[in-house]
Amino acid sequence: MSKTLVGVMGPGEGATDDDIRLAYELGRLIAQQGWILVTGGRRVGVMDAASRGAKSAQGMVVGILPGIDDEEMSAAVDIPIITGMNDARNNINVLSSQVLFFVGMSAGTASELALALKYKQPAILVCQPEDVVHVFAAMSSSILEITTDAASAVASAKRVLAGGEETP
Amino acid sequence: MSKTLVGVMGPGEGATDDDIRLAYELGRLIAQQGWILVTGGRRVGVMDAASRGAKSAQGMVVGILPGIDDEEMSAAVDIPIITGMNDARNNINVLSSQVLFFVGMSAGTASELALALKYKQPAILVCQPEDVVHVFAAMSSSILEITTDAASAVASAKRVLAGGEETP
Amino acid sequence: MSKTLVGVMGPGEGATDDDIRLAYELGRLIAQQGWILVTGGRRVGVMDAASRGAKSAQGMVVGILPGIDDEEMSAAVDIPIITGMNDARNNINVLSSQVLFFVGMSAGTASELALALKYKQPAILVCQPEDVVHVFAAMSSSILEITTDAASAVASAKRVLAGGEETP
Amino acid sequence: MSKTLVGVMGPGEGATDDDIRLAYELGRLIAQQGWILVTGGRRVGVMDAASRGAKSAQGMVVGILPGIDDEEMSAAVDIPIITGMNDARNNINVLSSQVLFFVGMSAGTASELALALKYKQPAILVCQPEDVVHVFAAMSSSILEITTDAASAVASAKRVLAGGEETP
Repeated sequence: MSKTLVGVMGPGEGATDDDIRLAYELGRLIAQQGWILVTGGRRVGVMDAASRGAKSAQGMVVGILPGIDDEEMSAAVDIPIITGMNDARNNINVLSSQVLFFVGMSAGTASELALALKYKQPAILVCQPEDVVHVFAAMSSSILEITTDAASAVASAKRVLAGGEETP
Repeated sequence: MSKTLVGVMGPGEGATDDDIRLAYELGRLIAQQGWILVTGGRRVGVMDAASRGAKSAQGMVVGILPGIDDEEMSAAVDIPIITGMNDARNNINVLSSQVLFFVGMSAGTASELALALKYKQPAILVCQPEDVVHVFAAMSSSILEITTDAASAVASAKRVLAGGEETP
Repeated sequence: MSKTLVGVMGPGEGATDDDIRLAYELGRLIAQQGWILVTGGRRVGVMDAASRGAKSAQGMVVGILPGIDDEEMSAAVDIPIITGMNDARNNINVLSSQVLFFVGMSAGTASELALALKYKQPAILVCQPEDVVHVFAAMSSSILEITTDAASAVASAKRVLAGGEETP
Repeated sequence: MSKTLVGVMGPGEGATDDDIRLAYELGRLIAQQGWILVTGGRRVGVMDAASRGAKSAQGMVVGILPGIDDEEMSAAVDIPIITGMNDARNNINVLSSQVLFFVGMSAGTASELALALKYKQPAILVCQPEDVVHVFAAMSSSILEITTDAASAVASAKRVLAGGEETP
């Protein structure tokens, strides 16, 4: 039985303090569920915060890195996947996560959210502004979960993973 | 001296009649400039229409295909690039185009627009709804060209390629 | 501190009984070292055998899959990385492994060995025929470790990882 | 009707004078057939020589580049495909070429030859040493064309493309 991998995607350099705080909390709750955290692996922003959160609860972190080595890696990554393919690796982040949380917004994050919708991967938007929700919801017949805090986001993911509701 | 490659990105299956008409016209005008058209290569929607438009003006079309063969290819593609990497190929579409036009919106298109902003590639939004413009413009300090018809879109691209204005 | 990832590469469908036996033994010894096993993730040949070997010793297995889902996955994979990029994923197998063992030979395996030499990743050839060793050794100034059994292969990897000898 | 794309693969920095001469001649003959040349796009070795040969006969050259921009590009490339994925792009070179010529040997070249055999793409080995032929021929039930000069290599490719013989 393979593990349950869930992704936390969000801005790197441009993450806000709120994004960082929320990502850390999500990482912590994800680890408490026994899920493996998937991030873009870099030592910055949402990726780094979620990874540190997961480590704070003895979780395991897979970092799918854009570079050709681990130079940019978050110190909280357990399993570095070195892709050497720059942002084409975003596609792997999305495909490898059974559920994806989106915290904060940036160009890279938007590319991952869009790909998640394309592949009909369950996507949970956490504290996203209304216009972001509106624009992306229009791209997919999937119902996006939209939540306002980490605990309800994780509760939504549990329902999706349990098959207790239609996967978006 | 390598050729000037410009991309036209937009929905496949979900393209509207307006998207199709506009993409065809863009393809035609691109060919008339002597530029090479880059698309996602499939025989559907904006990709196919732009490619047919370019062929109507004796242009050349590069189709960067997601599949492992040319089965889904538009008949108007001259140069099929077979990536076998599904939507990770969107990253190549974006990197290989010196300017990108975005016609219509879909999850795949949004992933390409987001990646263009990430890499600071010049992106020209053609007839996009106001909320789409607003959400994506917030992701990048780049100035996005926003136009309402194919001719002015191509005029914008000419200015960008000539270096006559700051590349977004 | 991220974990130590080591790869076992070898034929899928065309693996011999000896390849299977050796790969299983390597997987077991790798797990006993506390290393994470990296394979191509499929339920066949060397990939599957090494993964089962690692599980037999309570190890952890990362499977980097070529497909767009986990349909072909070995039941012994813990952490499926879904690349959706067919054999372009071989590049990720190679970059993500700090040391690579090559057991048996096939076209896919040869592409991974060649990429390992290209990137100067430590490559340990286990029970390879002399002409294979000769042809690949000529491609790289790296010294390839060449061993005849799983235990000495793992001992070589330990030396490389400890920096006790020049990394090939 | 899309064009016929054929690849010339071979060493970059490590190419010999003979490799360079042969690659140039192949590029020239390929252009004279009206085929599009596909190479790895860099300004070095076999890639560069084949591209210059094709240009000498007014041919068209597609260069599939590993980097994130065209900095390393051969001046003889007409159509740069910017992959940003390092040697994972080798997979695209192989999939996009209807026939592949292999001139000289190196780790990168070997990875492309191996992938060509994996995908059962027609592979023509030009002036390769006997042990290379022997090792790679054992990996595939495909019959590899093995030739000693550029003209007979191109004649073999014509037969394969015409379907005049079983595609390897």
